[in-house]
Amino acid sequence: MKLLDLLKRDPDWIYPRDGAEDIVLSTRVRLARNVALFPFPGRATDAERKDVFRLIKEVLKETKIFDNGLILSAEDLTLLDKELLFERRLVSKEFLRIKKFSGVAISADETISIMINEEDHLRIQVISGGFELHRAFDIANKIDDKIGERVKYAFSKRWGYLTSCLTNVGTGLRASVLLHLPALNQTGKLHSLMDKLRKEGFAVRGFFGEGTKAYGNFLQVSNQITLGVSEEEIIRNLYQKVKEIVEKEKNARSRLYDEAGLELENTVWRAYGIMKFARLLNLRDFVNYASAIRTGIGMQIIKNVDLLTINKLLIEAMPAHLMKKCGKTLEKDEEDYERAKLVRERI
Amino acid sequence: MKLLDLLKRDPDWIYPRDGAEDIVLSTRVRLARNVALFPFPGRATDAERKDVFRLIKEVLKETKIFDNGLILSAEDLTLLDKELLFERRLVSKEFLRIKKFSGVAISADETISIMINEEDHLRIQVISGGFELHRAFDIANKIDDKIGERVKYAFSKRWGYLTSCLTNVGTGLRASVLLHLPALNQTGKLHSLMDKLRKEGFAVRGFFGEGTKAYGNFLQVSNQITLGVSEEEIIRNLYQKVKEIVEKEKNARSRLYDEAGLELENTVWRAYGIMKFARLLNLRDFVNYASAIRTGIGMQIIKNVDLLTINKLLIEAMPAHLMKKCGKTLEKDEEDYERAKLVRERI
Repeated sequence: MKLLDLLKRDPDWIYPRDGAEDIVLSTRVRLARNVALFPFPGRATDAERKDVFRLIKEVLKETKIFDNGLILSAEDLTLLDKELLFERRLVSKEFLRIKKFSGVAISADETISIMINEEDHLRIQVISGGFELHRAFDIANKIDDKIGERVKYAFSKRWGYLTSCLTNVGTGLRASVLLHLPALNQTGKLHSLMDKLRKEGFAVRGFFGEGTKAYGNFLQVSNQITLGVSEEEIIRNLYQKVKEIVEKEKNARSRLYDEAGLELENTVWRAYGIMKFARLLNLRDFVNYASAIRTGIGMQIIKNVDLLTINKLLIEAMPAHLMKKCGKTLEKDEEDYERAKLVRERI
Repeated sequence: MKLLDLLKRDPDWIYPRDGAEDIVLSTRVRLARNVALFPFPGRATDAERKDVFRLIKEVLKETKIFDNGLILSAEDLTLLDKELLFERRLVSKEFLRIKKFSGVAISADETISIMINEEDHLRIQVISGGFELHRAFDIANKIDDKIGERVKYAFSKRWGYLTSCLTNVGTGLRASVLLHLPALNQTGKLHSLMDKLRKEGFAVRGFFGEGTKAYGNFLQVSNQITLGVSEEEIIRNLYQKVKEIVEKEKNARSRLYDEAGLELENTVWRAYGIMKFARLLNLRDFVNYASAIRTGIGMQIIKNVDLLTINKLLIEAMPAHLMKKCGKTLEKDEEDYERAKLVRERI
């Protein structure tokens, strides 16, 4: 399998699942791990990073997890390649600036990825379509065990897993859920919800995780605390909280429909009309219209588009994906043109 | 024929004609006339207005011009009826507030209308689709003659035809052309053109004539001066000027297409998408989107809608028309809903 093969198929996690798929897009579990006796990547010499990279690659090969997938060295990747991986949510934003002797392993269905020598020696990520927190956590755990059998993790009895950044020390676990909350946003309740979540110890971020803004009503909620709580507690707390948010969004949707159904239908159908016919679509507008159509699908206003089509577009209409598809760097106008063209073909 | 029969057929002047129909929507010629020895309507007593009204109705019946049409008394019309006539461009905005012993005569094809006891005893109007200034003027002249044979007009050898308002004294002739100038507007040249036209003695107005704003790139240009020039000169000057403007707009369109063809296509197709799917359309947005689609038709960007469809909508999607169709007064939201519904059915 080669990098470009990723473009030929859809990541497994974009398939809508489990009944709440119009509100919960996907679930992600990430474990930060480091190899004992080696300095963290940020403090390691090139030689040390090289050793760790080689070691982990060997270990991953032994686990056979990536037998049908890819193990890529950052050096072999162009910036566009890295952006492509970022848009597919396989690597972090930091991976775009990553140094040599780093890389990423990706499973064939793209539900498992492991960054090597990013902030930590290992960042194990499992991503799942819909609201499947426990399933994703179980898979991550099994991978963690498989690797742990073959390599000694940096671990302190007092602190738990040791990580490069203090915020990850302990369980090294970050679990996050990508939510689509148009009704809470439109009824003006999203901001107070975000404040409340932060006070309760959850992190709230935009579409593409850390450092990105919430737009198109998409929001990522994850645990903030990794220390002093068990992994099971983290998962259980987040699961409970997301269930609450989903209920809130459902209630807000039905209230919104009762109070302003026609305005809502108008917004949804206009977004559909624009997506169907526009000749230029910038990223921000695209995400906003995609959000409106998603809302329309979830509220059964619109029936001639399905969630999967929108989920696919939310990856394939991203800048690096469009450029990779066209085989060249695109100017702003060209990018908007190619995006509109793709969207017209699909909607 | 009854008033409501007007809604069953289209005015003859909405049919696109003569090659410049994507730029010139219609041409209108109006003659202001008064009956000698009677005071102008604004100064007349009820008894005098009644006499004039009766006299003119008799005269019009003799001319047989309105045999298949309508001769309506303002007293028999509701405000909604009058607004309907205004939207069909058969009466002036002032007609909405008209007193008793006034009325309007309308030919079956709606190209000829005569307001009685509005600002003047007679306002003879001929409206024609496309750029047909001479034809409209010829018809108006013939009607003027037919009436002039039967009634003595207030006329002074020195001043010409005497009218209620000084600005109409002389020929009593106002000729106007309704233009659609999106490219001149978009390239920022419309305002300087409007200033220039005003300096050259032309009046420039919005979509619905006097006192209305220019929106949706629609503009009415008419002669300002009625005194000291012959009728033929007025017609010839306006004709020449409009030909110039049409050329300017054509050039601006082709430059615009060369420089920003994709942006233009994007605007046109987005307008089409919104009109095709919106559930609510307010009047201003509707006129703007109609303008964009009209531009697209004129520039052959869009081929699945024709000018006639848009011309029809520009009458039938007006507030009074929607209310008359629904048989009741509509709230703002209901009006926008009915407009969007009608537009969806047609586009």
